[in-house]
Amino acid sequence: MSYNLLKGKKGIIFGALNDQSLAWKTALKCYEEGAELVLSNAPIALRMGEINKLAEATNAPVIGADVTNMEDLNNLFDKTMEHFGGKIDFILHSVGMSVNIRKGNPYTALNHEFEMKTLDISAVSFHKVLQVAFEKDALNEWASVVALTYIAAQKVFPDYNEMADAKSLLESIARSFGYHYGIKNKVRVNTISQSPTRTTAGSGVKGFDGFMNFAEAMSPLGNATADAFADYCVTIFSDLTKYVTMQNLFHDGGYSSTGVTQQVVDKMA
Amino acid sequence: MSYNLLKGKKGIIFGALNDQSLAWKTALKCYEEGAELVLSNAPIALRMGEINKLAEATNAPVIGADVTNMEDLNNLFDKTMEHFGGKIDFILHSVGMSVNIRKGNPYTALNHEFEMKTLDISAVSFHKVLQVAFEKDALNEWASVVALTYIAAQKVFPDYNEMADAKSLLESIARSFGYHYGIKNKVRVNTISQSPTRTTAGSGVKGFDGFMNFAEAMSPLGNATADAFADYCVTIFSDLTKYVTMQNLFHDGGYSSTGVTQQVVDKMA
Amino acid sequence: MSYNLLKGKKGIIFGALNDQSLAWKTALKCYEEGAELVLSNAPIALRMGEINKLAEATNAPVIGADVTNMEDLNNLFDKTMEHFGGKIDFILHSVGMSVNIRKGNPYTALNHEFEMKTLDISAVSFHKVLQVAFEKDALNEWASVVALTYIAAQKVFPDYNEMADAKSLLESIARSFGYHYGIKNKVRVNTISQSPTRTTAGSGVKGFDGFMNFAEAMSPLGNATADAFADYCVTIFSDLTKYVTMQNLFHDGGYSSTGVTQQVVDKMA
Amino acid sequence: MSYNLLKGKKGIIFGALNDQSLAWKTALKCYEEGAELVLSNAPIALRMGEINKLAEATNAPVIGADVTNMEDLNNLFDKTMEHFGGKIDFILHSVGMSVNIRKGNPYTALNHEFEMKTLDISAVSFHKVLQVAFEKDALNEWASVVALTYIAAQKVFPDYNEMADAKSLLESIARSFGYHYGIKNKVRVNTISQSPTRTTAGSGVKGFDGFMNFAEAMSPLGNATADAFADYCVTIFSDLTKYVTMQNLFHDGGYSSTGVTQQVVDKMA
Repeated sequence: MSYNLLKGKKGIIFGALNDQSLAWKTALKCYEEGAELVLSNAPIALRMGEINKLAEATNAPVIGADVTNMEDLNNLFDKTMEHFGGKIDFILHSVGMSVNIRKGNPYTALNHEFEMKTLDISAVSFHKVLQVAFEKDALNEWASVVALTYIAAQKVFPDYNEMADAKSLLESIARSFGYHYGIKNKVRVNTISQSPTRTTAGSGVKGFDGFMNFAEAMSPLGNATADAFADYCVTIFSDLTKYVTMQNLFHDGGYSSTGVTQQVVDKMA
Repeated sequence: MSYNLLKGKKGIIFGALNDQSLAWKTALKCYEEGAELVLSNAPIALRMGEINKLAEATNAPVIGADVTNMEDLNNLFDKTMEHFGGKIDFILHSVGMSVNIRKGNPYTALNHEFEMKTLDISAVSFHKVLQVAFEKDALNEWASVVALTYIAAQKVFPDYNEMADAKSLLESIARSFGYHYGIKNKVRVNTISQSPTRTTAGSGVKGFDGFMNFAEAMSPLGNATADAFADYCVTIFSDLTKYVTMQNLFHDGGYSSTGVTQQVVDKMA
Repeated sequence: MSYNLLKGKKGIIFGALNDQSLAWKTALKCYEEGAELVLSNAPIALRMGEINKLAEATNAPVIGADVTNMEDLNNLFDKTMEHFGGKIDFILHSVGMSVNIRKGNPYTALNHEFEMKTLDISAVSFHKVLQVAFEKDALNEWASVVALTYIAAQKVFPDYNEMADAKSLLESIARSFGYHYGIKNKVRVNTISQSPTRTTAGSGVKGFDGFMNFAEAMSPLGNATADAFADYCVTIFSDLTKYVTMQNLFHDGGYSSTGVTQQVVDKMA
Repeated sequence: MSYNLLKGKKGIIFGALNDQSLAWKTALKCYEEGAELVLSNAPIALRMGEINKLAEATNAPVIGADVTNMEDLNNLFDKTMEHFGGKIDFILHSVGMSVNIRKGNPYTALNHEFEMKTLDISAVSFHKVLQVAFEKDALNEWASVVALTYIAAQKVFPDYNEMADAKSLLESIARSFGYHYGIKNKVRVNTISQSPTRTTAGSGVKGFDGFMNFAEAMSPLGNATADAFADYCVTIFSDLTKYVTMQNLFHDGGYSSTGVTQQVVDKMA
């Protein structure tokens, strides 16, 4: 079923890796809701080739870009505007990677060069995307930009390691750039803080299953699914949420406002 | 233009006083989006008669209820379910009144009986509405309940007086009841924290104009309008936001995340 | 060991019930740190007589007052200033009681008259205390007022029931009055959000033990003890924290910033 | 006057540039309160020589260290423990520098290499300090570590530019490391969010004066002074605040909880 909420809108989706990805589901949903899309991912991810299925399903070109590379991003925005024949209405940034987690380094023994790389890929890349858009005046008035985040930015989840710090940085960049882009072009910038979701990225985190079960038990509505994320993201891209900006929006079944549930108290007893 | 976002849904709107009211605009918008409505307001407000225009425009019955009175609320829910021939999908609680503000009592010289009355009308009434719905099992699964609030619940705005405390209480009730109703029936409960809006209620606050101008100057997108509130509220009532619950949602053009704007710095210099 | 942090300071301590009470420990500590005290409690609590031991230990008069009764409070402040021969430097409000919890009413089936009583005793009483002090100009410049609160004001702990809403209201009153009293006399008003503590009040909450164990497992430093509360409270009463006001101060071993601990993940697995 | 709050304690103070610095005032105050100190600063700052006056006044050695350099930090901790003949009880990290602000780059046109440098100096350096301490087991149980931050981490102040993002990252690092160090050695880690203060660092921000005046007008108690910061910091280093950890502590005269003051409303009218 479609409401045509994004009819006539044009957007870029970063980070659709495979059909479990939040970005993948969101691309499909945006397309259903009437949007035209450009898909982008890191060259290395593109080589896996899965994204071509999504490209077909959404009738969208795939334009590779390393989100930490300003040249790549300049090229992406140029080609996107050329493809659309105009400016852009929405962007989803669903990008993150922790080098120290991959290498198995605990938070108290980080390799700091890796940490800087993590911050660059997972947070500063969002600034780079916005700065390129800003410089090229690539976004329409009231355009809506969303980055994916996680509640580890506010509270410690030990296995989330340095990604917690990266997400805090990401959320701050959303606020800061949201201010400037809001004043200049009424562009709004938000982050969505999603329940843990069984995606390829999520599964990379040590102890992810135990943790996901804990989140499920701590959420009055249960963990928000990837499909529900796509639905919610569509509302934030739509014209019905024009005055929502510089916010961190929890999409988590109530987890963020729950201290404890009866279910958890019982299990802990 | 309609997206049919609320097609087939049934809701109660509390607090539509006149065509400036947030609740009035929301009722119109919900109707446009396909919902069936019941309108409710305090008997004293009904006597002014304006609501009949809204009732006609939205093809909705008006059922009076003092929101602090459990009998009235029981009657309202009974009649509403009878009218709909079934359960309810959404509720807007846009009710608030400060007796001490009306009487001109400053915050440091409150009449505490008046204060209790203010808390009852503006906050505890929300608990009463939810409790009646809960007891009667009046809400469908995934129903969405929204109460109107204001950022004075988090930060002090001196002219807002005791209403700040009432709004804090209201937001806590939303979280608390959201937990229980979420676990029982997947009902979600949120508050929307709206920019100051030139409504009859808003205008009752001393120094409202000066304050509204300050908020405008402090919001990167400007103050959110009543029409935009209605749009946003529709998304929270819709099926696209099912996992958003127990949240206080800022709908304020970025005000809540802005420390200062250049415009304000310049004026203060 | 004493630092003489409160040498020459005069304060009122509300709510010392027995030697487990946070207020009791705080009174002892304030006395050790050089303060002169007045102790106050509800007439019904005084009849139990335990407070006389504290009165002896701290060389302090006991003046009964129902904190919801303005006459009682007026009398208390008059007698206190008479006793001290001058104004007051600090106040601890450690008062709270939930009638619905006592009666065993679940949150979804509150008796709303009881609820209003709970709000009056546990939150509005703080406004009354401050208003009486304000009207009598009873506090010295830079005086420090603290009320005891709990993180249920921010997140749902189901067994905490209506007390959560009362604590939200209490914290808002602290901010609101802190603004006005700060501007008038540089008086500061804060709440301290303490770990669950095995006091008579705490033990009244259903499932308290299970909950306290959960909090212990979720706090990197463990639950803050009542003795540690007294220590911390002394710093907030002292001249070393003059610019801390209108804050909710978490004293909880890190609980409020912890999403999950390894210990809890392991138990949940 | 001294309370001997830090008698027998040993600490490192980073970032004392001149007698206006928060770190300078804090070092003096810690010394007065009975602590033994080591002072550290960047080699380039040491060359200015002012710190020698502080070293004399506090009878403390100066050990240079680039806080982004792990070798320097290792050397610093080795020499410090040698000097003290034992472990360390407290650390103040008062370090921050924005390369893009220095170069005059607006937030929407950052040089991203500079940004990474800013993040490294102002935020990641705190992780490096803690990691070196952790690896060397250099801190006593219940040691207290504080980093200086600013409310721009939560709300946008446009002239604060990329430093806002750095402070968000810094606060997240404090929480994350606070968790791990708390569990391992009961070490607590907090940030203090201080009013804008007329220091050499503060004055480097464009429009600082206008901004400081705004903050003054928006704080019920006025801006917290550097001397008051030193007082407050001493309480957080002391044994009286053992269960305060992973917090961001506002020391700002009430600014952070104030939406607007009458004074600002009047000026804006």
